[in-house]
Amino acid sequence: MSILRKDPVTNGWVIIAEERAMRPLDFKPADPPSTDPARCPFCPGNEHLTPAAIRTVNGSGGKWSVRVIPNKFAALRVEGELNRRGVGLYSEMNGIGAHEVVIETPEHGQRMHSFSDEQLITVARVCHERVIDLSRDQRFRYVQIFRNFGPKAGASLEHPHTQIIALPIVPRWVKEELACAREHWQRTERCVFCDIVAQERDDGERLVYENEHFLSFMPFASKFPFETWILPKIHRADFRLAEAGELQCLADALRQTLKLLALGLADPPYNLMLHSAPFSAHDSELLENTANDYHWHIEIIPRLTIPGGFEWGTGFHINPTSPETASRFLREAQASA
Amino acid sequence: MSILRKDPVTNGWVIIAEERAMRPLDFKPADPPSTDPARCPFCPGNEHLTPAAIRTVNGSGGKWSVRVIPNKFAALRVEGELNRRGVGLYSEMNGIGAHEVVIETPEHGQRMHSFSDEQLITVARVCHERVIDLSRDQRFRYVQIFRNFGPKAGASLEHPHTQIIALPIVPRWVKEELACAREHWQRTERCVFCDIVAQERDDGERLVYENEHFLSFMPFASKFPFETWILPKIHRADFRLAEAGELQCLADALRQTLKLLALGLADPPYNLMLHSAPFSAHDSELLENTANDYHWHIEIIPRLTIPGGFEWGTGFHINPTSPETASRFLREAQASA
Repeated sequence: MSILRKDPVTNGWVIIAEERAMRPLDFKPADPPSTDPARCPFCPGNEHLTPAAIRTVNGSGGKWSVRVIPNKFAALRVEGELNRRGVGLYSEMNGIGAHEVVIETPEHGQRMHSFSDEQLITVARVCHERVIDLSRDQRFRYVQIFRNFGPKAGASLEHPHTQIIALPIVPRWVKEELACAREHWQRTERCVFCDIVAQERDDGERLVYENEHFLSFMPFASKFPFETWILPKIHRADFRLAEAGELQCLADALRQTLKLLALGLADPPYNLMLHSAPFSAHDSELLENTANDYHWHIEIIPRLTIPGGFEWGTGFHINPTSPETASRFLREAQASA
Repeated sequence: MSILRKDPVTNGWVIIAEERAMRPLDFKPADPPSTDPARCPFCPGNEHLTPAAIRTVNGSGGKWSVRVIPNKFAALRVEGELNRRGVGLYSEMNGIGAHEVVIETPEHGQRMHSFSDEQLITVARVCHERVIDLSRDQRFRYVQIFRNFGPKAGASLEHPHTQIIALPIVPRWVKEELACAREHWQRTERCVFCDIVAQERDDGERLVYENEHFLSFMPFASKFPFETWILPKIHRADFRLAEAGELQCLADALRQTLKLLALGLADPPYNLMLHSAPFSAHDSELLENTANDYHWHIEIIPRLTIPGGFEWGTGFHINPTSPETASRFLREAQASA
């Protein structure tokens, strides 16, 4: 079983997951992920290589179109008790949580921006369902949905997939965003993200894409070149509150944004992260969670630069491409495509 | 001129440094740094390729042994005013600061752990001097000293060097550590780092090296495999307060720690960061800064794993090797060497 440990110097937590079986000698440069569908555990016909599915969406001809499975090399396990304990000065607890994989398509070599509309909407809907389901477990406080594309972004398998990790604690960066948004609310009685949506639409120079319900843009204080956020234009603290029509628009915004990044940057590796309000400790009625002071969104970071000691020491990023330059570059790439 | 921008969602700052001349099309996989001393700007004979030295330490035969120069591709500039300004909802200011490079040796292919004692102590002393000097500029609040080794750790030049960045603001991770240490002090009237030193010496199972003044160990809540911290055993908030004998011991602890990591992990890429108390706003008398609630130290992160969407979304790290396993592995590697 993995262990959750708290850093006494930052109050942040880490997961020590030795079951993932990295022995010190395993740290060689990663091989590129296998491109051979015959050996891919996520390809149709190889379902026996993965744990049994948690959820399967059927496609045409009796085949599956989306499968959700427990991660075979899970960082956290659903079974057991947290058993919070002190180790002298330190704190740790058992690695309780959930770690699932959403296999987004049966087709090994697809890119997310090339999925059919129906496929991409199904993926968004399945992720939405899984978060709602996981939030019913009283032990969980936060669910992180993320997608790593390409070995340089930490992906170990090529087949299109998204990961979902449910945590028994609220991560420190989420707490930091919440505190910051709350402070803005207390000062202005406005949501800081709604303010950002308004200003980005006004300024226009950092925009990437807009549809009925979503705005895609590069943030003013981008930490990374071509960092792109997708925000719902309607105020919603919690991703669980997104309605069917919104998930449809989200799929569209996601496709257009990823397509532009792929076009402009020649299919770059990236990390995609969903940010949403943590589950309230007394969240019995899902729809009661209507907090004013948070706003769910997606952040996409193309992995083009390597953070060094300055970034890892301070959390302060040096970004060599302004969001204005980057979004203009994407608009020009689109115009000349 | 680069720009400092504040993220309204986290209150963190970023440096937008377009002068570093990364155009979008520059984001190709990095070439390995040149190993040809004839073309290396840090090698003796090529001094004309760098800006004029800020400080030179002479070695034997009239040659320099350590040179400090302004970074030619500086993220921040010393000249000018901050000019803090609002941009609608957002905040930005001019990229004022300092960005220096300490060329640690004339020998291009050396590893830090193979420097002579004298050379390594000189490097420590020069860094110490530079921080004291930079802290006299009333505009600066923090100085980050860091060392990137290997292209996978973000190093763009092979020749041994350390970088120093002086900032007009205290970075958010530093603030976080300070707040956490202060909270521990208020609760216990003890320094959390002094407590850590005591517990690590007692436990012993995460130790890497110890000498008269320093302890080198892998932290209980290591974010990365083989993450190693070097702490002064004497309570000192501020690196500027380190005395000559301590700098000598620091050089020894650094050498032994880096040697062990190089031996056990076959010369891994790494980032090394110095953490120290920010400069007080009214720090006219250097030695008056004797805060109880911080403790300067060095953190070393071998770059063996690639942080993905989970880490970048939450600040929560999954570490596949416990510090106990990692330090035992280094002890065994040393015993069989």
